Amino acid sequence: MRNLKLILEYDGTNYHGFQSQATVGLPTIQGELERVLQRWTGEAITVIGASRTDAGVHARGQVVNFHTSWPIPVDKVPLALNSGGLPPDIVIKQAEEVEPAFHAQFWAKNKTYRYTIYNSRIPSAFWHRYSWYVPVLLDSQAMAEAARLLLGTHDFAAFRAAGATSKTTIRTINQVAVAQDGPLLTITINGNGFLYNMVRIIAGTLVEIGKGKLDPEVITQIIASRDRNQAGPTAPPQGLCLLES
Amino acid sequence: MRNLKLILEYDGTNYHGFQSQATVGLPTIQGELERVLQRWTGEAITVIGASRTDAGVHARGQVVNFHTSWPIPVDKVPLALNSGGLPPDIVIKQAEEVEPAFHAQFWAKNKTYRYTIYNSRIPSAFWHRYSWYVPVLLDSQAMAEAARLLLGTHDFAAFRAAGATSKTTIRTINQVAVAQDGPLLTITINGNGFLYNMVRIIAGTLVEIGKGKLDPEVITQIIASRDRNQAGPTAPPQGLCLLES
Repeated sequence: MRNLKLILEYDGTNYHGFQSQATVGLPTIQGELERVLQRWTGEAITVIGASRTDAGVHARGQVVNFHTSWPIPVDKVPLALNSGGLPPDIVIKQAEEVEPAFHAQFWAKNKTYRYTIYNSRIPSAFWHRYSWYVPVLLDSQAMAEAARLLLGTHDFAAFRAAGATSKTTIRTINQVAVAQDGPLLTITINGNGFLYNMVRIIAGTLVEIGKGKLDPEVITQIIASRDRNQAGPTAPPQGLCLLES
Repeated sequence: MRNLKLILEYDGTNYHGFQSQATVGLPTIQGELERVLQRWTGEAITVIGASRTDAGVHARGQVVNFHTSWPIPVDKVPLALNSGGLPPDIVIKQAEEVEPAFHAQFWAKNKTYRYTIYNSRIPSAFWHRYSWYVPVLLDSQAMAEAARLLLGTHDFAAFRAAGATSKTTIRTINQVAVAQDGPLLTITINGNGFLYNMVRIIAGTLVEIGKGKLDPEVITQIIASRDRNQAGPTAPPQGLCLLES
Protein backbone atom coordinates (compact mmCIF):
# COMPACT_ATOMS: atom_id res chain seq x y z
CA MET A 1 0.00 0.00 0.00
CA ARG A 2 1.23 3.49 -0.88
CA ASN A 3 0.62 6.53 1.28
CA LEU A 4 -0.27 9.58 -0.82
CA LYS A 5 -0.28 13.14 0.50
CA LEU A 6 -2.29 15.81 -1.30
CA ILE A 7 -2.56 19.56 -0.93
CA LEU A 8 -6.11 20.74 -1.52
CA GLU A 9 -7.72 24.07 -2.30
CA TYR A 10 -11.47 24.47 -1.91
CA ASP A 11 -14.26 27.00 -1.88
CA GLY A 12 -16.21 25.75 1.13
CA THR A 13 -19.43 27.64 0.35
CA ASN A 14 -21.35 24.63 -0.91
CA TYR A 15 -20.03 22.07 1.61
CA HIS A 16 -20.95 21.03 5.11
CA GLY A 17 -17.34 21.18 6.17
CA PHE A 18 -14.35 18.95 5.52
CA GLN A 19 -15.39 15.91 7.46
CA SER A 20 -18.08 13.46 6.39
CA GLN A 21 -21.12 13.58 8.61
CA ALA A 22 -23.09 10.82 10.22
CA THR A 23 -26.08 12.50 8.57
CA VAL A 24 -26.24 11.07 5.09
CA GLY A 25 -26.58 13.26 2.00
CA LEU A 26 -24.77 16.41 3.11
CA PRO A 27 -21.87 17.10 0.75
CA THR A 28 -18.44 17.36 2.39
CA ILE A 29 -14.93 17.81 1.04
CA GLN A 30 -13.88 14.42 2.41
CA GLY A 31 -16.95 12.78 0.89
CA GLU A 32 -16.32 14.25 -2.58
CA LEU A 33 -12.69 13.20 -2.49
CA GLU A 34 -13.45 9.66 -1.30
CA ARG A 35 -16.14 9.27 -3.96
CA VAL A 36 -13.75 10.24 -6.76
CA LEU A 37 -10.90 8.11 -5.35
CA GLN A 38 -13.18 5.10 -5.15
CA ARG A 39 -14.11 5.61 -8.80
CA TRP A 40 -10.46 5.69 -9.85
CA THR A 41 -9.14 2.91 -7.62
CA GLY A 42 -12.07 0.63 -6.93
CA GLU A 43 -11.00 0.80 -3.27
CA ALA A 44 -13.00 2.08 -0.30
CA ILE A 45 -10.56 4.83 0.67
CA THR A 46 -10.58 6.87 3.87
CA VAL A 47 -9.09 10.34 3.52
CA ILE A 48 -7.48 11.92 6.59
CA GLY A 49 -7.36 15.72 6.74
CA ALA A 50 -4.99 17.93 8.73
CA SER A 51 -7.86 20.28 9.69
CA ARG A 52 -11.54 19.58 10.03
CA THR A 53 -12.70 22.87 8.57
CA ASP A 54 -16.31 23.82 9.30
CA ALA A 55 -19.19 24.36 6.90
CA GLY A 56 -18.53 27.39 4.68
CA VAL A 57 -14.84 27.61 5.59
CA HIS A 58 -12.36 27.64 2.70
CA ALA A 59 -8.85 26.22 2.21
CA ARG A 60 -5.86 27.03 0.06
CA GLY A 61 -3.56 24.52 1.73
CA GLN A 62 -5.44 21.64 3.34
CA VAL A 63 -3.17 18.61 3.68
CA VAL A 64 -4.72 15.16 3.40
CA ASN A 65 -3.39 11.63 3.07
CA PHE A 66 -4.75 8.19 2.21
CA HIS A 67 -3.47 4.68 1.70
CA THR A 68 -4.04 2.97 -1.64
CA SER A 69 -2.77 0.37 -4.10
CA TRP A 70 -3.52 2.74 -7.00
CA PRO A 71 -0.51 2.35 -9.34
CA ILE A 72 -0.73 5.86 -10.89
CA PRO A 73 2.53 7.91 -11.14
CA VAL A 74 2.21 10.45 -8.35
CA ASP A 75 2.68 13.47 -10.65
CA LYS A 76 -0.44 12.40 -12.60
CA VAL A 77 -2.67 12.43 -9.51
CA PRO A 78 -3.71 16.13 -9.57
CA LEU A 79 -4.77 16.03 -13.24
CA ALA A 80 -6.54 12.67 -12.82
CA LEU A 81 -8.64 13.87 -9.90
CA ASN A 82 -9.17 17.50 -11.01
CA SER A 83 -10.39 16.62 -14.47
CA GLY A 84 -11.69 13.20 -13.55
CA GLY A 85 -14.56 13.70 -11.17
CA LEU A 86 -13.88 16.45 -8.61
CA PRO A 87 -16.24 19.42 -8.76
CA PRO A 88 -14.54 22.70 -9.83
CA ASP A 89 -14.68 24.14 -6.30
CA ILE A 90 -12.30 21.42 -5.01
CA VAL A 91 -8.83 21.32 -6.57
CA ILE A 92 -5.80 19.12 -5.92
CA LYS A 93 -2.80 21.47 -6.10
CA GLN A 94 -0.01 18.98 -5.35
CA ALA A 95 0.53 15.28 -4.68
CA GLU A 96 3.48 13.35 -3.29
CA GLU A 97 4.20 9.86 -2.02
CA VAL A 98 5.14 9.86 1.66
CA GLU A 99 6.36 7.39 4.26
CA PRO A 100 3.77 4.85 5.46
CA ALA A 101 3.51 6.40 8.93
CA PHE A 102 2.60 9.90 7.74
CA HIS A 103 -0.81 10.94 9.11
CA ALA A 104 -2.12 14.35 7.99
CA GLN A 105 -3.91 15.05 11.27
CA PHE A 106 -1.40 13.75 13.84
CA TRP A 107 1.67 14.94 11.96
CA ALA A 108 0.37 18.48 11.41
CA LYS A 109 2.75 20.80 13.22
CA ASN A 110 1.90 24.41 12.50
CA LYS A 111 -1.15 25.72 10.73
CA THR A 112 -1.86 29.11 9.21
CA TYR A 113 -5.35 30.54 8.95
CA ARG A 114 -6.50 33.80 7.43
CA TYR A 115 -9.69 35.58 8.44
CA THR A 116 -10.93 38.17 5.91
CA ILE A 117 -13.21 41.10 6.73
CA TYR A 118 -14.77 43.29 4.05
CA ASN A 119 -14.86 46.67 5.78
CA SER A 120 -16.75 49.27 3.78
CA ARG A 121 -19.98 51.23 3.87
CA ILE A 122 -20.93 49.43 0.63
CA PRO A 123 -20.70 45.61 0.44
CA SER A 124 -19.09 43.65 -2.39
CA ALA A 125 -20.92 41.22 -4.68
CA PHE A 126 -17.66 39.31 -5.20
CA TRP A 127 -16.38 39.10 -1.63
CA HIS A 128 -19.57 38.08 0.16
CA ARG A 129 -18.72 34.36 -0.16
CA TYR A 130 -15.15 34.91 1.11
CA SER A 131 -15.39 37.52 3.85
CA TRP A 132 -17.33 38.88 6.78
CA TYR A 133 -19.01 42.11 5.74
CA VAL A 134 -18.58 44.74 8.49
CA PRO A 135 -19.99 48.16 7.47
CA VAL A 136 -18.73 50.06 10.55
CA LEU A 137 -15.25 51.49 9.98
CA LEU A 138 -12.74 49.46 12.00
CA ASP A 139 -9.57 50.74 13.68
CA SER A 140 -7.05 48.29 12.25
CA GLN A 141 -4.23 49.76 14.35
CA ALA A 142 -6.08 48.88 17.55
CA MET A 143 -6.79 45.41 16.16
CA ALA A 144 -3.10 44.87 15.32
CA GLU A 145 -2.09 46.03 18.79
CA ALA A 146 -4.56 43.61 20.38
CA ALA A 147 -3.49 40.76 18.10
CA ARG A 148 0.11 41.02 19.29
CA LEU A 149 -1.07 40.13 22.82
CA LEU A 150 -2.11 36.71 21.53
CA LEU A 151 1.48 35.77 20.66
CA GLY A 152 3.15 33.03 22.67
CA THR A 153 1.95 30.07 24.66
CA HIS A 154 -1.28 30.61 26.57
CA ASP A 155 -4.33 28.79 27.83
CA PHE A 156 -6.86 29.81 25.17
CA ALA A 157 -9.94 28.32 26.89
CA ALA A 158 -11.72 31.71 26.53
CA PHE A 159 -11.36 31.39 22.74
CA ARG A 160 -12.91 27.95 22.44
CA ALA A 161 -16.50 27.23 21.41
CA ALA A 162 -18.69 26.36 24.38
CA GLY A 163 -19.14 22.61 24.62
CA ALA A 164 -15.95 21.75 22.71
CA THR A 165 -13.77 19.07 24.22
CA SER A 166 -10.01 18.70 23.90
CA LYS A 167 -7.45 17.40 26.37
CA THR A 168 -5.67 20.70 26.76
CA THR A 169 -6.59 24.29 25.92
CA ILE A 170 -2.94 25.42 25.84
CA ARG A 171 -1.75 26.49 22.40
CA THR A 172 1.14 28.50 20.97
CA ILE A 173 0.59 31.35 18.53
CA ASN A 174 3.81 31.92 16.57
CA GLN A 175 2.77 34.75 14.29
CA VAL A 176 -0.20 37.04 13.88
CA ALA A 177 -0.65 39.93 11.45
CA VAL A 178 -3.49 42.36 10.82
CA ALA A 179 -3.26 43.89 7.33
CA GLN A 180 -5.44 46.33 5.44
CA ASP A 181 -5.71 46.64 1.66
CA GLY A 182 -8.51 49.00 0.73
CA PRO A 183 -11.75 47.54 2.13
CA LEU A 184 -10.10 44.19 2.84
CA LEU A 185 -8.86 43.61 6.34
CA THR A 186 -7.11 40.32 7.03
CA ILE A 187 -6.02 38.59 10.21
CA THR A 188 -3.35 35.98 9.46
CA ILE A 189 -2.44 33.69 12.31
CA ASN A 190 0.03 30.84 12.61
CA GLY A 191 0.06 28.48 15.55
CA ASN A 192 0.82 24.93 16.65
CA GLY A 193 -2.88 24.11 16.80
CA PHE A 194 -6.23 25.77 17.21
CA LEU A 195 -9.17 25.00 19.48
CA TYR A 196 -12.64 24.60 18.03
CA ASN A 197 -13.73 27.98 16.56
CA MET A 198 -10.62 29.64 18.02
CA VAL A 199 -9.72 31.71 14.95
CA ARG A 200 -13.33 32.82 14.46
CA ILE A 201 -13.64 33.86 18.12
CA ILE A 202 -10.33 35.73 17.86
CA ALA A 203 -11.66 37.49 14.72
CA GLY A 204 -14.95 38.33 16.44
CA THR A 205 -13.06 39.74 19.46
CA LEU A 206 -10.68 41.79 17.30
CA VAL A 207 -13.67 43.28 15.47
CA GLU A 208 -15.16 44.40 18.82
CA ILE A 209 -11.81 46.07 19.48
CA GLY A 210 -11.75 47.58 15.98
CA LYS A 211 -15.19 49.08 16.66
CA GLY A 212 -13.88 50.66 19.86
CA LYS A 213 -16.21 48.59 22.07
CA LEU A 214 -13.26 46.96 23.80
CA ASP A 215 -9.71 48.22 24.46
CA PRO A 216 -6.81 46.32 22.88
CA GLU A 217 -5.33 45.49 26.30
CA VAL A 218 -8.47 43.52 27.19
CA ILE A 219 -7.01 40.54 25.29
CA THR A 220 -4.68 39.78 28.21
CA GLN A 221 -7.60 39.78 30.66
CA ILE A 222 -9.74 37.63 28.36
CA ILE A 223 -6.97 35.03 28.09
CA ALA A 224 -6.50 35.07 31.89
CA SER A 225 -10.25 34.65 32.51
CA ARG A 226 -10.42 31.32 30.63
CA ASP A 227 -14.10 32.29 30.18
CA ARG A 228 -15.70 32.09 26.72
CA ASN A 229 -18.17 34.80 27.75
CA GLN A 230 -15.37 37.36 28.12
CA ALA A 231 -14.35 37.05 24.47
CA GLY A 232 -16.26 38.51 21.51
CA PRO A 233 -18.76 36.74 19.24
CA THR A 234 -17.79 33.96 16.83
CA ALA A 235 -17.16 35.53 13.42
CA PRO A 236 -19.08 33.86 10.55
CA PRO A 237 -17.44 30.93 8.72
CA GLN A 238 -17.14 32.35 5.19
CA GLY A 239 -14.35 34.76 6.22
CA LEU A 240 -12.08 31.89 7.29
CA CYS A 241 -9.53 30.19 5.06
CA LEU A 242 -6.96 27.54 5.96
CA LEU A 243 -3.80 28.76 4.22
CA GLU A 244 -1.31 26.10 5.32
CA SER A 245 -1.48 22.94 7.35
CA MET B 1 -41.24 61.71 -11.32
CA ARG B 2 -37.52 61.50 -10.52
CA ASN B 3 -34.98 59.74 -12.69
CA LEU B 4 -32.49 57.76 -10.61
CA LYS B 5 -29.24 56.36 -11.95
CA LEU B 6 -27.51 53.49 -10.15
CA ILE B 7 -24.16 51.80 -10.56
CA LEU B 8 -24.43 48.06 -9.94
CA GLU B 9 -21.98 45.30 -9.16
CA TYR B 10 -23.03 41.68 -9.51
CA ASP B 11 -21.78 38.14 -9.52
CA GLY B 12 -23.71 36.80 -12.50
CA THR B 13 -23.18 33.10 -11.71
CA ASN B 14 -26.68 32.50 -10.40
CA TYR B 15 -28.57 34.67 -12.90
CA HIS B 16 -29.93 34.19 -16.38
CA GLY B 17 -28.44 37.47 -17.50
CA PHE B 18 -29.31 41.08 -16.86
CA GLN B 19 -32.56 41.30 -18.75
CA SER B 20 -35.83 39.76 -17.63
CA GLN B 21 -36.94 36.90 -19.82
CA ALA B 22 -40.27 36.14 -21.38
CA THR B 23 -39.84 32.74 -19.69
CA VAL B 24 -41.18 33.18 -16.19
CA GLY B 25 -39.24 32.00 -13.16
CA LEU B 26 -35.65 32.47 -14.30
CA PRO B 27 -33.86 34.89 -11.99
CA THR B 28 -32.35 37.95 -13.68
CA ILE B 29 -30.55 41.02 -12.38
CA GLN B 30 -33.29 43.28 -13.71
CA GLY B 31 -35.97 41.08 -12.14
CA GLU B 32 -34.32 41.13 -8.71
CA LEU B 33 -33.89 44.89 -8.83
CA GLU B 34 -37.47 45.56 -9.97
CA ARG B 35 -38.84 43.23 -7.28
CA VAL B 36 -36.98 45.09 -4.51
CA LEU B 37 -37.87 48.53 -5.92
CA GLN B 38 -41.53 47.58 -6.07
CA ARG B 39 -41.38 46.55 -2.42
CA TRP B 40 -39.86 49.90 -1.40
CA THR B 41 -41.94 52.16 -3.63
CA GLY B 42 -45.20 50.34 -4.28
CA GLU B 43 -44.68 51.23 -7.95
CA ALA B 44 -44.29 48.87 -10.91
CA ILE B 45 -40.84 50.08 -11.93
CA THR B 46 -39.01 49.24 -15.15
CA VAL B 47 -35.25 49.30 -14.85
CA ILE B 48 -33.19 50.14 -17.95
CA GLY B 49 -29.64 48.79 -18.13
CA ALA B 50 -26.71 50.10 -20.16
CA SER B 51 -25.66 46.54 -21.11
CA ARG B 52 -27.73 43.42 -21.40
CA THR B 53 -25.11 41.09 -19.96
CA ASP B 54 -25.63 37.38 -20.65
CA ALA B 55 -26.21 34.53 -18.22
CA GLY B 56 -23.15 33.99 -16.04
CA VAL B 57 -21.53 37.33 -17.00
CA HIS B 58 -20.50 39.63 -14.14
CA ALA B 59 -20.46 43.40 -13.67
CA ARG B 60 -18.54 45.89 -11.56
CA GLY B 61 -20.01 48.95 -13.22
CA GLN B 62 -23.39 48.30 -14.82
CA VAL B 63 -25.32 51.58 -15.14
CA VAL B 64 -29.10 51.47 -14.82
CA ASN B 65 -31.85 54.06 -14.47
CA PHE B 66 -35.52 54.13 -13.55
CA HIS B 67 -38.28 56.67 -13.03
CA THR B 68 -40.02 56.83 -9.67
CA SER B 69 -41.90 59.00 -7.20
CA TRP B 70 -39.96 57.43 -4.30
CA PRO B 71 -39.13 60.38 -2.00
CA ILE B 72 -35.96 58.83 -0.50
CA PRO B 73 -32.83 61.06 -0.29
CA VAL B 74 -30.63 59.75 -3.09
CA ASP B 75 -27.64 59.05 -0.85
CA LYS B 76 -29.80 56.60 1.14
CA VAL B 77 -30.66 54.50 -1.92
CA PRO B 78 -27.65 52.12 -1.86
CA LEU B 79 -28.11 51.21 1.80
CA ALA B 80 -31.90 50.87 1.44
CA LEU B 81 -31.64 48.44 -1.47
CA ASN B 82 -28.47 46.57 -0.38
CA SER B 83 -29.71 45.80 3.09
CA GLY B 84 -33.37 45.90 2.21
CA GLY B 85 -34.04 43.04 -0.11
CA LEU B 86 -31.29 42.59 -2.70
CA PRO B 87 -29.42 39.27 -2.56
CA PRO B 88 -25.75 39.58 -1.54
CA ASP B 89 -24.52 38.89 -5.08
CA ILE B 90 -26.14 42.10 -6.37
CA VAL B 91 -24.87 45.37 -4.86
CA ILE B 92 -25.75 49.01 -5.53
CA LYS B 93 -22.41 50.86 -5.41
CA GLN B 94 -23.66 54.40 -6.17
CA ALA B 95 -26.87 56.32 -6.80
CA GLU B 96 -27.53 59.77 -8.20
CA GLU B 97 -30.48 61.77 -9.45
CA VAL B 98 -30.17 62.61 -13.14
CA GLU B 99 -32.00 64.67 -15.74
CA PRO B 100 -35.37 63.25 -16.89
CA ALA B 101 -34.10 62.39 -20.37
CA PHE B 102 -31.19 60.22 -19.20
CA HIS B 103 -31.57 56.66 -20.53
CA ALA B 104 -28.92 54.13 -19.42
CA GLN B 105 -29.00 52.20 -22.68
CA PHE B 106 -29.25 55.00 -25.26
CA TRP B 107 -26.94 57.40 -23.44
CA ALA B 108 -24.18 54.83 -22.91
CA LYS B 109 -21.13 56.12 -24.77
CA ASN B 110 -18.12 53.96 -24.05
CA LYS B 111 -18.06 50.65 -22.25
CA THR B 112 -15.19 48.71 -20.76
CA TYR B 113 -15.21 44.93 -20.48
CA ARG B 114 -12.63 42.63 -18.99
CA TYR B 115 -12.20 39.01 -19.97
CA THR B 116 -10.27 36.87 -17.45
CA ILE B 117 -8.46 33.63 -18.27
CA TYR B 118 -6.99 31.37 -15.59
CA ASN B 119 -3.93 29.98 -17.34
CA SER B 120 -2.22 27.26 -15.33
CA ARG B 121 -1.67 23.53 -15.38
CA ILE B 122 -3.65 23.36 -12.13
CA PRO B 123 -7.08 25.05 -11.92
CA SER B 124 -8.25 27.31 -9.09
CA ALA B 125 -11.14 26.56 -6.75
CA PHE B 126 -11.67 30.31 -6.26
CA TRP B 127 -11.41 31.55 -9.85
CA HIS B 128 -13.60 28.98 -11.58
CA ARG B 129 -16.69 31.19 -11.27
CA TYR B 130 -14.84 34.26 -12.57
CA SER B 131 -12.55 33.03 -15.33
CA TRP B 132 -12.09 30.68 -18.25
CA TYR B 133 -9.73 27.91 -17.21
CA VAL B 134 -7.18 27.27 -19.99
CA PRO B 135 -4.56 24.66 -18.98
CA VAL B 136 -2.34 25.07 -22.10
CA LEU B 137 0.31 27.75 -21.57
CA LEU B 138 -0.62 30.83 -23.62
CA ASP B 139 1.76 33.25 -25.33
CA SER B 140 0.48 36.53 -23.90
CA GLN B 141 2.89 38.57 -26.07
CA ALA B 142 1.34 37.17 -29.23
CA MET B 143 -2.13 37.86 -27.81
CA ALA B 144 -1.20 41.47 -27.00
CA GLU B 145 0.21 41.95 -30.48
CA ALA B 146 -2.99 40.57 -32.03
CA ALA B 147 -5.19 42.67 -29.74
CA ARG B 148 -3.57 45.88 -30.99
CA LEU B 149 -4.89 45.11 -34.48
CA LEU B 150 -8.43 45.47 -33.14
CA LEU B 151 -7.90 49.16 -32.31
CA GLY B 152 -9.81 51.74 -34.31
CA THR B 153 -13.04 51.75 -36.28
CA HIS B 154 -13.80 48.55 -38.14
CA ASP B 155 -16.66 46.43 -39.36
CA PHE B 156 -16.67 43.71 -36.68
CA ALA B 157 -19.23 41.42 -38.36
CA ALA B 158 -16.79 38.49 -38.00
CA PHE B 159 -16.90 38.96 -34.22
CA ARG B 160 -20.67 38.85 -33.86
CA ALA B 161 -22.70 35.82 -32.77
CA ALA B 162 -24.38 34.11 -35.71
CA GLY B 163 -28.02 35.15 -35.94
CA ALA B 164 -27.56 38.42 -34.03
CA THR B 165 -29.22 41.47 -35.53
CA SER B 166 -28.10 45.09 -35.27
CA LYS B 167 -28.36 47.91 -37.76
CA THR B 168 -24.64 48.28 -38.21
CA THR B 169 -21.67 46.08 -37.37
CA ILE B 170 -19.23 49.01 -37.35
CA ARG B 171 -17.74 49.73 -33.93
CA THR B 172 -14.75 51.62 -32.54
CA ILE B 173 -12.29 50.03 -30.13
CA ASN B 174 -10.52 52.80 -28.20
CA GLN B 175 -8.26 50.78 -25.95
CA VAL B 176 -7.28 47.17 -25.52
CA ALA B 177 -4.76 45.65 -23.12
CA VAL B 178 -3.60 42.10 -22.46
CA ALA B 179 -2.07 41.75 -19.00
CA GLN B 180 -0.63 38.83 -17.08
CA ASP B 181 -0.41 38.48 -13.31
CA GLY B 182 0.72 34.98 -12.37
CA PRO B 183 -1.88 32.54 -13.72
CA LEU B 184 -4.37 35.35 -14.43
CA LEU B 185 -4.46 36.68 -17.95
CA THR B 186 -6.85 39.56 -18.63
CA ILE B 187 -8.06 41.22 -21.81
CA THR B 188 -9.43 44.68 -21.06
CA ILE B 189 -11.23 46.39 -23.90
CA ASN B 190 -12.91 49.77 -24.20
CA GLY B 191 -15.12 50.70 -27.13
CA ASN B 192 -18.10 52.74 -28.19
CA GLY B 193 -20.28 49.63 -28.27
CA PHE B 194 -20.04 45.89 -28.68
CA LEU B 195 -21.91 43.47 -30.90
CA TYR B 196 -23.59 40.42 -29.41
CA ASN B 197 -20.87 38.11 -27.96
CA MET B 198 -18.17 40.35 -29.48
CA VAL B 199 -15.87 40.40 -26.43
CA ARG B 200 -16.24 36.66 -25.92
CA ILE B 201 -15.44 35.94 -29.59
CA ILE B 202 -12.43 38.27 -29.38
CA ALA B 203 -11.28 36.40 -26.24
CA GLY B 204 -11.80 33.04 -27.95
CA THR B 205 -9.81 34.21 -30.98
CA LEU B 206 -6.97 35.64 -28.88
CA VAL B 207 -6.71 32.33 -27.02
CA GLU B 208 -6.30 30.49 -30.36
CA ILE B 209 -3.47 32.94 -31.09
CA GLY B 210 -2.03 32.44 -27.59
CA LYS B 211 -1.98 28.68 -28.24
CA GLY B 212 -0.07 29.27 -31.48
CA LYS B 213 -2.88 27.88 -33.64
CA LEU B 214 -3.27 31.24 -35.41
CA ASP B 215 -0.76 34.02 -36.09
CA PRO B 216 -1.36 37.44 -34.52
CA GLU B 217 -1.61 39.12 -37.96
CA VAL B 218 -4.64 36.97 -38.81
CA ILE B 219 -6.83 39.46 -36.90
CA THR B 220 -6.64 41.88 -39.84
CA GLN B 221 -7.82 39.17 -42.24
CA ILE B 222 -10.59 38.02 -39.91
CA ILE B 223 -11.92 41.59 -39.65
CA ALA B 224 -11.75 41.98 -43.46
CA SER B 225 -13.59 38.68 -44.01
CA ARG B 226 -16.71 39.82 -42.10
CA ASP B 227 -17.22 36.06 -41.64
CA ARG B 228 -17.98 34.68 -38.17
CA ASN B 229 -16.42 31.34 -39.18
CA GLN B 230 -12.99 32.94 -39.60
CA ALA B 231 -12.84 34.04 -35.95
CA GLY B 232 -12.20 31.73 -32.98
CA PRO B 233 -14.76 30.10 -30.68
CA THR B 234 -16.94 32.08 -28.25
CA ALA B 235 -15.20 32.10 -24.87
CA PRO B 236 -17.42 30.99 -21.94
CA PRO B 237 -19.48 33.63 -20.11
CA GLN B 238 -18.01 33.38 -16.60
CA GLY B 239 -14.75 35.03 -17.70
CA LEU B 240 -16.53 38.21 -18.76
CA CYS B 241 -17.10 41.25 -16.55
CA LEU B 242 -18.57 44.63 -17.46
CA LEU B 243 -16.20 47.08 -15.74
CA GLU B 244 -17.71 50.40 -16.83
CA SER B 245 -20.72 51.45 -18.85
